[in-house]
Amino acid sequence: MKRPALPPGFSAAGVACGIKPGRATDLAVIYSEREAVAAGVFTTNRVQAAPVRVSREHLRRGRARVIVANSGNANACTGPQGMADAKAMAARAAAGLGIRPQEVLVASTGVIGVPLPMGKVLPGIDAALRRLSRRGLIQAAEGILTTDTRPKVHQIRRRIGGKVVTVTGIAKGAGMIHPHMATMLAFLLTDAAVDPKPLKAALKAAVAATFNRISVDGDQSTNDTVFCLANGLSGHRPIRGAGVGLRAFQETLTEVCLDLAHQIVRDGEGATHFVAVHVTGAPSERAATRVASAVANSVLVKTALFGRDPNWGRVMAAVGRAGVPIRPERIGVAFNGIPLVRSGTGLGAAQRRAAARALTRRHVTLQIHLGMGRAQATVWTTDLSEAYVRLNARYTT
Amino acid sequence: MKRPALPPGFSAAGVACGIKPGRATDLAVIYSEREAVAAGVFTTNRVQAAPVRVSREHLRRGRARVIVANSGNANACTGPQGMADAKAMAARAAAGLGIRPQEVLVASTGVIGVPLPMGKVLPGIDAALRRLSRRGLIQAAEGILTTDTRPKVHQIRRRIGGKVVTVTGIAKGAGMIHPHMATMLAFLLTDAAVDPKPLKAALKAAVAATFNRISVDGDQSTNDTVFCLANGLSGHRPIRGAGVGLRAFQETLTEVCLDLAHQIVRDGEGATHFVAVHVTGAPSERAATRVASAVANSVLVKTALFGRDPNWGRVMAAVGRAGVPIRPERIGVAFNGIPLVRSGTGLGAAQRRAAARALTRRHVTLQIHLGMGRAQATVWTTDLSEAYVRLNARYTT
Repeated sequence: MKRPALPPGFSAAGVACGIKPGRATDLAVIYSEREAVAAGVFTTNRVQAAPVRVSREHLRRGRARVIVANSGNANACTGPQGMADAKAMAARAAAGLGIRPQEVLVASTGVIGVPLPMGKVLPGIDAALRRLSRRGLIQAAEGILTTDTRPKVHQIRRRIGGKVVTVTGIAKGAGMIHPHMATMLAFLLTDAAVDPKPLKAALKAAVAATFNRISVDGDQSTNDTVFCLANGLSGHRPIRGAGVGLRAFQETLTEVCLDLAHQIVRDGEGATHFVAVHVTGAPSERAATRVASAVANSVLVKTALFGRDPNWGRVMAAVGRAGVPIRPERIGVAFNGIPLVRSGTGLGAAQRRAAARALTRRHVTLQIHLGMGRAQATVWTTDLSEAYVRLNARYTT
Repeated sequence: MKRPALPPGFSAAGVACGIKPGRATDLAVIYSEREAVAAGVFTTNRVQAAPVRVSREHLRRGRARVIVANSGNANACTGPQGMADAKAMAARAAAGLGIRPQEVLVASTGVIGVPLPMGKVLPGIDAALRRLSRRGLIQAAEGILTTDTRPKVHQIRRRIGGKVVTVTGIAKGAGMIHPHMATMLAFLLTDAAVDPKPLKAALKAAVAATFNRISVDGDQSTNDTVFCLANGLSGHRPIRGAGVGLRAFQETLTEVCLDLAHQIVRDGEGATHFVAVHVTGAPSERAATRVASAVANSVLVKTALFGRDPNWGRVMAAVGRAGVPIRPERIGVAFNGIPLVRSGTGLGAAQRRAAARALTRRHVTLQIHLGMGRAQATVWTTDLSEAYVRLNARYTT
């Protein structure tokens, strides 16, 4: 892959405005030269941060030109002041660029319940606008990180409607054990030409197959946000509805999101294993996803993987409590290709020893066959280490 | 409280038969001289261990005389051999006592998926029968422990129908972070006189208000089992249905179960805090329980408590994803009586410092007021420590 860059017509910047200690980059601005078609997917948590509420409102028209995002402070549970602050962020960027505040989307991530230090944020926005650059992608990606250890960027170029289209994405994640609790932000930028309705549909489908597969359905943080801006500069005939063009665009978007989602898992707090829970033989995709999520979110399964222990009994127990009708006597389980359970019954110590050896690998595939149908799903997660607990016990105080 | 003892008419024993290494007590037998009315509450996990299936069958008549339980091996996911082994346990005890196998209830806890070492279990049952004693309560309580650090016993004596009735219980628990994954066993013994139907109703109600409040509704291990045997020897007029007698009995049973449930939480793996999540102002008790469970099972809340960090933002996020309609702007949160959130908004750094000091106490009450009604519920849990992860990463291999 070429070093990722912004698609044509976009510029970006990341600055350190002082929300985070130690001059860490904590504010990002992304700007589209011309009005872009815009879509967003937000957290389903009933406690929604102020920037989520403001951006949802600003997306009503399906157009936007700017994303302003800060890290270090989530602007969540901050009452009416929080709403005013989120609107002020949008207004400041709009004033600096000579556009309307409704054309600005905002996002925040970090500590909940502390008012935004607007005396730092507003000058930070001004500074970021002065530094907007075609080469500002990585700085912007750094500006949205919290406990992530590295920026997450991915890009794909593909021919759509006879033109080369670029899709570039940045993301942040990090708290991996209950992913729905850690704020996930992802911003997708493209020079594709897509109408608002198909853009929204493509984004929803891409998120469902990627970011939502590293999370429990419907359980998300107060701030989770995915934006997509499409400025149309690639010059292909605009995608107005279903068809070859939308399919190609959606596949490209999904591919970028999947790579970013995997980067988020790999950078999970304290993670020592990257785990793909692959459920097959399910009566429906929904059932497969539920079973995979129950296993991927089992703290007992995750601690066992950290200990390199192929503890399939904990896997069976998690499968049984997923709320899906299953037949225990049909279940097969394999760790990294080594079968441990056949027809619901354990296969013995030799297999277990072989699986334990296989768990020294950093990448773990946990395969569960239900024997109930043909549907399948994969959920990605990490193990749970002592380092995770250490990190999360010390995050705010 | 007097040193707990078996109610009249019961004897018990615990022996080391060699399932666990190091001569640890791993087999318990409880015997009622006369046929007792019996009831059971079992796991709702769809993967059910062989002893659960056998005991459910044996409870059909609502009578029993013996409980045989082993630790160190769950006899779960062990196929047809596991069913044969569970039945053989009941048959061996029945043969030794000259009763029918249907009068014997069985329970197992420990590692999943390994066949029971019947060459040790069957002689162990014989040995336990030889040692049955009026003073065998504590040894029996020790025989069912896994990673518990101490036996759990509680007893209450109360006058019912003009007679002193004794209710004695033993329990084991331990894996506290996802309690539904750790096998919970509890055996309640009483000389009360209760018909099968009211006994079952009283036991269900007692479990719902106690053991199920240290767990997520409906999410349980493959082996969870609560038995109650009532031999009637106290001589009061038998409880045949609703009324003063049943109410008094149910209250007593609930009180014993609550104490045992709290002992299980206190002995949670690696726990440094005992946490009561108390939700008030809910539209229904069900909603209150769901919110309390979401908070009590939030890994981020639990790691924060381990770090003595009054991180109410994580509490708000957990409340928001509980799947209950709430109004964030009405929510109040207090840690150990120190208000941190009022009307959905944080109260500032001074309150937070005071709450951090209050978290040095081992007992934490996390109070959440929803402002939506009058219903309430409490769920009890522990914090999540590095020691928990260490313990669970090393449990089986």
